[in-house]
Amino acid sequence: MVLAIAESERVRGITSPNPPVGCVILDESGKAVGFGGTQQAGGPHAEVMALKEAGVKAQGGTAVVTLEPCSHYGRTPPCTEALVEAGIKHVIHAVTDPNPRAAGGAKRLEDAGISVESGLLEHEVSNGPLRAWLHFAKTGRPHVTWKYAASLDGRIAAQDGTSQWISSETSRKEVHDMRAKLDAIIVGTGTVKKDDPALTARDADGMPLPRQPLPVVVGMSDLPDGAKLQHTALHLRTHDPDVVLAELASRGVVDVLLEGGPTVAGAFLRAGRIDRVLAYIAPALIGNGLAAVLDAGVSTITDAVRLTVEDVTMSGPDLRISAVPQI
Amino acid sequence: MVLAIAESERVRGITSPNPPVGCVILDESGKAVGFGGTQQAGGPHAEVMALKEAGVKAQGGTAVVTLEPCSHYGRTPPCTEALVEAGIKHVIHAVTDPNPRAAGGAKRLEDAGISVESGLLEHEVSNGPLRAWLHFAKTGRPHVTWKYAASLDGRIAAQDGTSQWISSETSRKEVHDMRAKLDAIIVGTGTVKKDDPALTARDADGMPLPRQPLPVVVGMSDLPDGAKLQHTALHLRTHDPDVVLAELASRGVVDVLLEGGPTVAGAFLRAGRIDRVLAYIAPALIGNGLAAVLDAGVSTITDAVRLTVEDVTMSGPDLRISAVPQI
Ligand SMILES: NC(=O)c1ccc[n+]([C@@H]2O[C@H](COP(=O)([O-])OP(=O)(O)OC[C@H]3O[C@@H](n4cnc5c(N)ncnc54)[C@H](OP(=O)(O)O)[C@@H]3O)[C@@H](O)[C@H]2O)c1
Ligand SMILES: NC(=O)c1ccc[n+]([C@@H]2O[C@H](COP(=O)([O-])OP(=O)(O)OC[C@H]3O[C@@H](n4cnc5c(N)ncnc54)[C@H](OP(=O)(O)O)[C@@H]3O)[C@@H](O)[C@H]2O)c1
Repeated sequence: MVLAIAESERVRGITSPNPPVGCVILDESGKAVGFGGTQQAGGPHAEVMALKEAGVKAQGGTAVVTLEPCSHYGRTPPCTEALVEAGIKHVIHAVTDPNPRAAGGAKRLEDAGISVESGLLEHEVSNGPLRAWLHFAKTGRPHVTWKYAASLDGRIAAQDGTSQWISSETSRKEVHDMRAKLDAIIVGTGTVKKDDPALTARDADGMPLPRQPLPVVVGMSDLPDGAKLQHTALHLRTHDPDVVLAELASRGVVDVLLEGGPTVAGAFLRAGRIDRVLAYIAPALIGNGLAAVLDAGVSTITDAVRLTVEDVTMSGPDLRISAVPQI
Repeated sequence: MVLAIAESERVRGITSPNPPVGCVILDESGKAVGFGGTQQAGGPHAEVMALKEAGVKAQGGTAVVTLEPCSHYGRTPPCTEALVEAGIKHVIHAVTDPNPRAAGGAKRLEDAGISVESGLLEHEVSNGPLRAWLHFAKTGRPHVTWKYAASLDGRIAAQDGTSQWISSETSRKEVHDMRAKLDAIIVGTGTVKKDDPALTARDADGMPLPRQPLPVVVGMSDLPDGAKLQHTALHLRTHDPDVVLAELASRGVVDVLLEGGPTVAGAFLRAGRIDRVLAYIAPALIGNGLAAVLDAGVSTITDAVRLTVEDVTMSGPDLRISAVPQI
């Protein structure tokens, strides 16, 4: 399953609105003979990719897959049929498909005499490569990660508005790698006016990575003439996070990075539309300056948006904190 | 040495302005036969305490001590003489005494035919129990730890001023234990007016711990009538951190906890008088509200006060970050 998760991670970002599934085929003796990840929407699913590589060696073997194989005719024929035809005898999957349209895969396989086991490394998969897609399948809304870089005292810019390089090179590189695995990045018009970001995923030399997310700007005002995002971004003239997310969902966006600023972050927080907070905290103090969030809808301490910390790691000199709002 | 450090930690808070030294006496065979920590100023030093417990078993033995034994006549006779008289053959210390008045201990011991080894676990001792005292010996100023409790976005109070229980019970307990090992706690008049703190070290049941730090209030205005600190605190009518620290030094204060608020914290930061930052970061978001620091003297991002993170641990659900300003 660890190998299947790696396959899954490899295709993250290219599959939406389909889930980035990974699959490994083991032959009868337990040797890995085929690896596959889901291709772009409309392309073959992970199981089919892995079976293709395995060829006849799949006969009598086992399919290890991050998500329950689908049993419905969508843009591609059901994976269950491909597994049956290839002579697979066992299927082990991590996560059961919550999608009623696709579900029933396990039953279909069992009916065909294949033994099915589920739940292996379920937590790792459902909080890892399939997290955004599972959220989308459950709520119909893209999964939103709010990412920000702040000083230890919570400032994202100094008094004069300067904010470049609050966080370290290591953290910035991590963010670019993350961008390449996401479907869309949101900022407000304020950030466009102030920082003129390109919102592209670039490598250490500043060269664009092969896969680019959709840049999205939220706000009523026009983008400044000559802004890098003027012709590349989807500009949504609204202040309502749900309008933004519905529009993105209709475009097949599943996994979203909200990169601020503090006004838009506040709006998403107030609407309860932040599913994960990813804070890069630089070991520095700034004092008066711009805060990470402005109006979060909290006026008294008991109303604070409580989070559960999922993970804390160092990213170069910075702290990287991943947390989810408590519901 | 680990045992000597434990002895040292046990007496932290009672020895100032003397260093909280720990000593373990090993007999000729290497067995620990005496333990001791420095007593209140004017009382016996660690070596003398440990020798007393060891008695005749010290003969031919080893003294393991966190600080180089002193060789001068102060309020107590020099420890070097006590070691010589007890027939100690080896001395191992962690840290060399930086104090010219007390130094020369190692030489005096060697002159008496005792072998002396220094530097064992030096880092642990000089960043642990002797940290504040070494800072004091080097600079003449008390060591200042600025401690604050904030949300992930750097707020120490909500918009309506409420701030109680931002951090968890575990963190609050830790702070009370810390207070009992310090010489003084500083707040500004603003915090007294707003929160009416007692600044006492209390146990889980709210009962005062045996050792209490000196509460200090900084600011020009009078304390409100009936404030808990009105008759217990040292009220220093100044805005100058150096005046505060000089006054405290003259009272034998070596280890200080600055508990804010954001105005006084800013003043100490601007003056370069914060030696360590101890941030309890609660996993919560507040948005608009009171920030941890107000004017830190930083107007543009390149002037940010850069820190080096020493340690990150979880304190219940909170993150506890210890960092030192880069010089
Ligand atoms: N360090 C970091 O992680 C980071 C990240 C991003 C930004 N920043 C900093 O943030 C600063 C910009 O702050 P900002 O708050 O202006 O940026 P912002 O949140 O990106 O943009 C604010 C603008 O978005 C529009 N908007 C969209 N939804 C809204 C809503 N629900 N309510 C109100 N307005 C809404 C409004 O403009 P319209 O009038 O057009 O509607 C508003 O003025 C810059 O200094 C930038 O450097 C830092
Ligand atoms: N969560 C936490 O960790 C924490 C800790 C402490 C406080 N707080 C919160 O902080 C808030 C109080 O904020 P605050 O800023 O008023 O508190 P403060 O910093 O404790 O007190 C500010 C006052 O101290 C005096 N002062 C001393 N040195 C000064 C200097 N160099 N420059 C200017 N003034 C100086 C001034 O009063 P004079 O006019 O008397 O000179 C000033 O108004 C409260 O809401 C409290 O809950 C939170």
